[in-house]
Amino acid sequence: MVAPMDFFYEFASTYSYVTALRIAPLAAASGVTVRWRPFLLGPIFKAQGWDTSPFNLYPAKGRYMVRDCERLCAELGLAFRLPEPFPQNSLLAARVALVALEDGFGEELSRRIYLAEFAEGRAIAAPEVMAGIIDALGRDGAATLARAQTDQIKTKLRATTEEAQRLGIFGAPSFIAGGELFWGNDRLEQALAAAQRAEH
Amino acid sequence: MVAPMDFFYEFASTYSYVTALRIAPLAAASGVTVRWRPFLLGPIFKAQGWDTSPFNLYPAKGRYMVRDCERLCAELGLAFRLPEPFPQNSLLAARVALVALEDGFGEELSRRIYLAEFAEGRAIAAPEVMAGIIDALGRDGAATLARAQTDQIKTKLRATTEEAQRLGIFGAPSFIAGGELFWGNDRLEQALAAAQRAEH
Repeated sequence: MVAPMDFFYEFASTYSYVTALRIAPLAAASGVTVRWRPFLLGPIFKAQGWDTSPFNLYPAKGRYMVRDCERLCAELGLAFRLPEPFPQNSLLAARVALVALEDGFGEELSRRIYLAEFAEGRAIAAPEVMAGIIDALGRDGAATLARAQTDQIKTKLRATTEEAQRLGIFGAPSFIAGGELFWGNDRLEQALAAAQRAEH
Repeated sequence: MVAPMDFFYEFASTYSYVTALRIAPLAAASGVTVRWRPFLLGPIFKAQGWDTSPFNLYPAKGRYMVRDCERLCAELGLAFRLPEPFPQNSLLAARVALVALEDGFGEELSRRIYLAEFAEGRAIAAPEVMAGIIDALGRDGAATLARAQTDQIKTKLRATTEEAQRLGIFGAPSFIAGGELFWGNDRLEQALAAAQRAEH
């Protein structure tokens, strides 16, 4: 039996969107079980002196990222647009995703949140937007949002973010597979292969 | 006839090493003519406030880069080690490569310089190391080094670096194909495909 792979993703991250939308069929084909781990990059960026996305700090890199994501998304048949403002505050989305993962609809909700944000350019920091996305899945938006504000969920997100930092994670998406760190949508296939080689 | 592709590379760059060692057969298979364009990232990094490699500025990213390059190189059957200090001063290597490109042995010399630096960990900033690499190719190390210090070559390198900056290049390796910028060893295949689609 192959070892599971941890998928650390950040809702403000454009490349996490691309990975979130393509990981499921690739993992299934590899026989790898993926643990979806929403976390926050903000505290990690802050620790290295950044107060916003590197794509804002370095405009040439930011312009390139948009075009790169457009090309990657076009190959996958996905739309791509940046929400305003970029990056979005992803705190609520991460907490809501943790609730939904406990309740068994976290992966599908994560994909829907990413599509709302980066295919439609919607403001995912707004509670009413988030509630609408959850309701559209046939789940209870109001109840999910209420649980997202409990200490249990807040603590869980903080712990995940601290774990990511301890693991040496500095960007998103990141994968832990076979005891090693892999960074970026471009390393998804390599990470799955490493998980496939690793045994329980 | 497909349009040529520009390959901008920096001798201090680990990922440029990986690309330089694998680009030739892929380009040949695609029918794409590659223009090798050595340039300097230093002035571009300086313009965005960096005084050294981002892999030194952000240690977690630096540690990851070493492991990532080890894995990429292992897949290609290449050795990988960081030279001391990292990054190497790449000014002499870039000038020497420009001379060699004029004389028809620039691609092979570039590969040899990268192998000396990142497979053997040698100090490519040292003129005697560089002369030895050129001599080992059956060329005249002393004469090549002398031409590398002429105003014509110095001006050519400065012009290439300024052109890279105008093109929006912020890292290495970078490719210009079909009028678009592609960044990173991970985009080599995509850039070649874009060049293939573009016609003269």
